[in-house]
Amino acid sequence: MTIMGDEIRQIPGVVQEQLDATGAALEAVAEAVRRARPRWVSIVARGTSDHAAIYARYLIETQLGWPVGLASPSVTTIYHAPTDWSDGLVLAVSQSGRSPDLTAVVEAARRGGALTVAVTNVAGSPLELAAAHTVACRAGEERAVAATKSYVAELAALAGIVAALVPDSDLAAALPRVPAVLGRTLEAASAWFAGAGHGRGLELVEAVAVAGRALVVSRGFNLATALETALKMKETGRIFAEGYSSADLEHGPIALASAGFPTVVFRPDGPMGAAIDPAAAKARARGASPWIIGGVEVAGAPDALAIDALAELPECLTPLALILPGQLLAEAVAVRLGLSPDAPSGLSKVTLTR
Amino acid sequence: MTIMGDEIRQIPGVVQEQLDATGAALEAVAEAVRRARPRWVSIVARGTSDHAAIYARYLIETQLGWPVGLASPSVTTIYHAPTDWSDGLVLAVSQSGRSPDLTAVVEAARRGGALTVAVTNVAGSPLELAAAHTVACRAGEERAVAATKSYVAELAALAGIVAALVPDSDLAAALPRVPAVLGRTLEAASAWFAGAGHGRGLELVEAVAVAGRALVVSRGFNLATALETALKMKETGRIFAEGYSSADLEHGPIALASAGFPTVVFRPDGPMGAAIDPAAAKARARGASPWIIGGVEVAGAPDALAIDALAELPECLTPLALILPGQLLAEAVAVRLGLSPDAPSGLSKVTLTR
Repeated sequence: MTIMGDEIRQIPGVVQEQLDATGAALEAVAEAVRRARPRWVSIVARGTSDHAAIYARYLIETQLGWPVGLASPSVTTIYHAPTDWSDGLVLAVSQSGRSPDLTAVVEAARRGGALTVAVTNVAGSPLELAAAHTVACRAGEERAVAATKSYVAELAALAGIVAALVPDSDLAAALPRVPAVLGRTLEAASAWFAGAGHGRGLELVEAVAVAGRALVVSRGFNLATALETALKMKETGRIFAEGYSSADLEHGPIALASAGFPTVVFRPDGPMGAAIDPAAAKARARGASPWIIGGVEVAGAPDALAIDALAELPECLTPLALILPGQLLAEAVAVRLGLSPDAPSGLSKVTLTR
Repeated sequence: MTIMGDEIRQIPGVVQEQLDATGAALEAVAEAVRRARPRWVSIVARGTSDHAAIYARYLIETQLGWPVGLASPSVTTIYHAPTDWSDGLVLAVSQSGRSPDLTAVVEAARRGGALTVAVTNVAGSPLELAAAHTVACRAGEERAVAATKSYVAELAALAGIVAALVPDSDLAAALPRVPAVLGRTLEAASAWFAGAGHGRGLELVEAVAVAGRALVVSRGFNLATALETALKMKETGRIFAEGYSSADLEHGPIALASAGFPTVVFRPDGPMGAAIDPAAAKARARGASPWIIGGVEVAGAPDALAIDALAELPECLTPLALILPGQLLAEAVAVRLGLSPDAPSGLSKVTLTR
């Protein structure tokens, strides 16, 4: 077992522990947000955490109706923009809390009067010290360079913040069900990649490893899942994988789809799944054979992993589960290629950009 | 000459015509924005126009200090979010003005009380009818499927809107110099790709065509240039090219850099150029030989195209010029591969997503 594989399998327990331990911290943050009454939200993050930020953007816009932007740190650190922070909420998301550019944005925002909240996994980091409030991810030490359990813990913490602000929502009601769904998702995905059912999970691993490239597609909440799966494949298997919104794919990059281009589609059940289907159909018409990873609606489709347990979550929580097959895919491709997913060449756990 | 190549060469004239003709429209939009006093900005766009939106985000945040988000239409069209639009400015950017999802967002925003402005190239489009104000790009009919002149015209129109709001800025002062700089940039880049100087432009075309893939890197204002160059290569040459912020590249995807991976870096002069250099150095350390396209500071560097004329523009206007070598590169790669850049397989000029 790789360290990465071990850490993926810790995820249901990590989320359960976080749910058990962070109630008071989430309530304090929610109370501060209610008092501050922010008019807009800016989220600052990099790499894997940037995908958690994209998830949070959809979550805040759909659940709270507040406009959200993803901050580019260079606007502050290099261009020294005259930002008016006064009625903003600035969320910083980082596993290590150590990248200087993220800390600089939070410091500027706090000085400028914004409410600042850090979501981070390492206690006592510069980012945590800079922010007015912190929500701890509680994923434990992450030893693999490729972030897996800390990513899902970030999603859970961000969902927890929003749920505390809309306590009567489907989101808040479903959060306690997440750990069990993650456990069942891991079982289903592990079996699929081990060759169970139609065994197409094994074929997907082989196709990506041989092609050295992949398209990963979704839309809405699970755009984060597509982008993060593509990044994991880059980091651990040196696969040239790119994640796309199915709508953006149709505006140009669909030109790449072909028989030689493995395509993975994350398709939640419901209206968003139906909106994603045309892009998958176009890819199929161009000779690609997309693999579909989704919920009960894809059961029986060829080359599909249908995860029954997703039916227990509203779509806005499915990214916490759907990333698990994405992470297992990246790990399996790396192992198949004889690479160590735990220590990818040239990467370090903490990246310090300015 | 391809249609795409012809349209690229029209760009200096297109921008000059727009500058000559849109003064009154820009002043009207600026006056409406001043009256509305927006507290936040949301930009909605897809494909090539989404890269113009990314440029506008940096421009508005650095010149005006207002927070900007890039809207995901699905938040409105599929998730039916309870957005409070009341003190927002919503900018929609689209060549055709015909994608239903963009129009739906503008309609919802206008109904909700936001100030809505369309930047579009085709008069009388649904998007123009939906928005309260329009700035016409005046690029003329674009016949090639791959957008080139309409992209630069969108950048110029967006820069024009911001310049009208900060008339005493370097930005406003430099705008009239843009057409001449674009003309000189085209000359320098055309000569480079034709084998002049060290002839490395020709080698870059060959390297990308043979590898079938590329990394394209920049940061800040020219992140848009990197993303748009990568998209052009995908569309016209079916090259698996991905654009990256140099900072994000260091947070994982640098794992891909190697001798077999052509890397193009757009490097403006000044502090941002210096901030981009470490990523190029890391790529070089991994065996990649990055080609650098920039201003006077890269003169004399190996594998570099140094465009003297860029010295006449503040960095915030260099994306209008630096995209020209990117577009010429994509066209040259397609021609080298025997593909028609004017009618890429499977793409149409107008894409209707919902």
